[in-house]
Amino acid sequence: MSSQPKIIIFLGDGVGDRPVPELDGRTPLEAQATPHLDHLAAGGVCGMLNPISHGRRVGSDTAHMAILGYDPFSNYKGRGPFEAKGVGIDVLPGDLAFRCNFSTVEGRRVTDRRAGRISSGTDELAKAVNEQAGLIDGVQCIFRESVEHRAALVMRGADLDHRITEVDPHHEGAEYPDCAPLPEAADDPNAIRTAAIVNKWVQAAHAALDSHPVNQQRRAAGLPPANIALPRGVGTAVHLEPFAKRYGLKGAMIVEVDLVRGLGLYLGMTVVDVPEATGGKDTDELAISRAVVAALDSHDFVLANIKAPDLAGHDHDAAQKMGAIAKLDSAVGYLLEHVDFECTTILVTGDHCTPVTYGDHTGDAVPAVFYGLGVRPDNCGSFGERTCMQGGLGYFTGFDVMPLLTNLAGVQAKFGA
Amino acid sequence: MSSQPKIIIFLGDGVGDRPVPELDGRTPLEAQATPHLDHLAAGGVCGMLNPISHGRRVGSDTAHMAILGYDPFSNYKGRGPFEAKGVGIDVLPGDLAFRCNFSTVEGRRVTDRRAGRISSGTDELAKAVNEQAGLIDGVQCIFRESVEHRAALVMRGADLDHRITEVDPHHEGAEYPDCAPLPEAADDPNAIRTAAIVNKWVQAAHAALDSHPVNQQRRAAGLPPANIALPRGVGTAVHLEPFAKRYGLKGAMIVEVDLVRGLGLYLGMTVVDVPEATGGKDTDELAISRAVVAALDSHDFVLANIKAPDLAGHDHDAAQKMGAIAKLDSAVGYLLEHVDFECTTILVTGDHCTPVTYGDHTGDAVPAVFYGLGVRPDNCGSFGERTCMQGGLGYFTGFDVMPLLTNLAGVQAKFGA
Repeated sequence: MSSQPKIIIFLGDGVGDRPVPELDGRTPLEAQATPHLDHLAAGGVCGMLNPISHGRRVGSDTAHMAILGYDPFSNYKGRGPFEAKGVGIDVLPGDLAFRCNFSTVEGRRVTDRRAGRISSGTDELAKAVNEQAGLIDGVQCIFRESVEHRAALVMRGADLDHRITEVDPHHEGAEYPDCAPLPEAADDPNAIRTAAIVNKWVQAAHAALDSHPVNQQRRAAGLPPANIALPRGVGTAVHLEPFAKRYGLKGAMIVEVDLVRGLGLYLGMTVVDVPEATGGKDTDELAISRAVVAALDSHDFVLANIKAPDLAGHDHDAAQKMGAIAKLDSAVGYLLEHVDFECTTILVTGDHCTPVTYGDHTGDAVPAVFYGLGVRPDNCGSFGERTCMQGGLGYFTGFDVMPLLTNLAGVQAKFGA
Repeated sequence: MSSQPKIIIFLGDGVGDRPVPELDGRTPLEAQATPHLDHLAAGGVCGMLNPISHGRRVGSDTAHMAILGYDPFSNYKGRGPFEAKGVGIDVLPGDLAFRCNFSTVEGRRVTDRRAGRISSGTDELAKAVNEQAGLIDGVQCIFRESVEHRAALVMRGADLDHRITEVDPHHEGAEYPDCAPLPEAADDPNAIRTAAIVNKWVQAAHAALDSHPVNQQRRAAGLPPANIALPRGVGTAVHLEPFAKRYGLKGAMIVEVDLVRGLGLYLGMTVVDVPEATGGKDTDELAISRAVVAALDSHDFVLANIKAPDLAGHDHDAAQKMGAIAKLDSAVGYLLEHVDFECTTILVTGDHCTPVTYGDHTGDAVPAVFYGLGVRPDNCGSFGERTCMQGGLGYFTGFDVMPLLTNLAGVQAKFGA
């Protein structure tokens, strides 16, 4: 490796937690042996990360935005644009973007939200949708398939408004509703018009899909037809300054969450595909670390995220979370062996907490440790919620992360003389 | 001394540091015996100062602005106005101001950036420049000599733009460039016009200087002529509310950095001259402390700054920095003997860190201690990076300093009922 300073952010998704009764009141981080994380804590400086501010619950998208220095309050108008970017649509500022599911409907009743997890033919289906529903009331509609039943939709035209309801009912057996303006925009002509365009698109796409040969074959094979696409997760695309322009750093992302991959692409970062990183509890954490080390050869900055801790939190499974934390620790161990921390600064933390007792993201602060180049060690000797609360860095926010890292790595311009 | 509450900010310029290998991983503050600073820590409350926010690298000017409660993000447009104010030009809001060097050129090649550190006759030279180049395209140009080769230039007129390049090439042997708009303002008519005016001034001043009798005498004596003035460090003067108006306190500054003296003058503070304060590693720190004590007789607030620690940091010299810290400690010892801390609150910290391993300002937080009137002591017993990280005040910013101090000293108006 060159002696050019490098920066790593390694995130255990949702890694922070709360005391768990079955762990005698310890958190999974405290209960699981984490020799490598403890090594970082002993040689680095610890603290507590609030992605936004004290107590604020965040999503993975808003948390990653904040950690990369993009204020989600002014720059986040829904996840749709990141999803669409992740699916490969070239989203432009002002576009309205949605995630979609290929689903199965009988009349308006949704019988399978994932159309039997359809695994082939969605490219042909998308093509047919774009041919029949590519232009609605002067608005360009770009639909693109992703893996399995997943897809994305981008609408491009003047005065579109994201203050509209979802078409996906989120429950099988329910009827899908019409898109409508949100109550706050009930009288807004742009929101009313946008909702009408979405409804027209859904029906035009439904017509194209229902009779499509792919679905005729599926019906013949006893499979649920992918005869509708249900938009949800709408967002308006905003301009985000490219990462390289903002920081003067060539950045890469190695992450297991499509939404975050989309954010990386949106920011013009290299998004590295690691086939062994499954996004599940069986993920190959060493493959992620190998990809980080490889990416450092040609990048100044790498953000990695291992999803497993978050999954375990959502599953209310403390043992599974301890296993995921063991994987995070193992991934960090690989980095300790293969990265030169004389010229590299690393931050290990999470994008938020997903406590197993809660089963979803909380606004609790996340334990964090900075290690390597430039760091002034504190007296912490282990990595966990309680120890990092006593860390030398105290509480900091996501917006502090890039200034802290670029300062430590010595790649930040001075403000003033 | 009266029982009127008083406030002191005593800054060791660049005093904070990072672990130094040759000091066995201790910082200079940790390695140097500092009995008086430790006395403050034991009897006061410690914390960590981020001049702006976590990780942000600052200059001395922006740091002092923040510490005095003036947001540099909205109030800092270059150092030039402070330099010009320090040289004695009455800078007005909207003025464009530069620092300048008297230099020696042959053709366009700069053969001596400091014109042999010219020590006399610059007043006559400046007078000649103002006679020949006092008005360029309707813009008033005010040039004034400072010590040795140093000078300042103020341009006063409508629509001047500071987004222009420097004329000083910063290297001897190089040709001095024309002033030009910065890339971001390449098409801006005001920036283009301002650059043209600067170039005309440089040439008009050059003509006045080259043939001046002072330079004829220098040439005859074998000395390099001060035959050009090269502007750099441009800034637009903004309105800053006077310190006394903002805080209702009569303030004085005793500082060794011209740039900061200029800020003090800009804020309408008394700037006390201490001849024994050389600004070097040989400075007389007790003379500074004596001046602080004297100023407290007629002022409510005194800010002092001893430059030596910063110099040692820039010089990568840990032993020199320890010596500078010993001077800071000695200066504080004098205050402990001669100030009544029953009615005086003091903050001792730095304006930023200048680690000897880095050789320039970093965005690391600076150890800080509040002592005296109003202070609630914590459990810290010594003054250093690691101990203050555990201090009772935690992290605070420059913008918190004046509220903290005026609160402790009991001279702050209540907000609310």
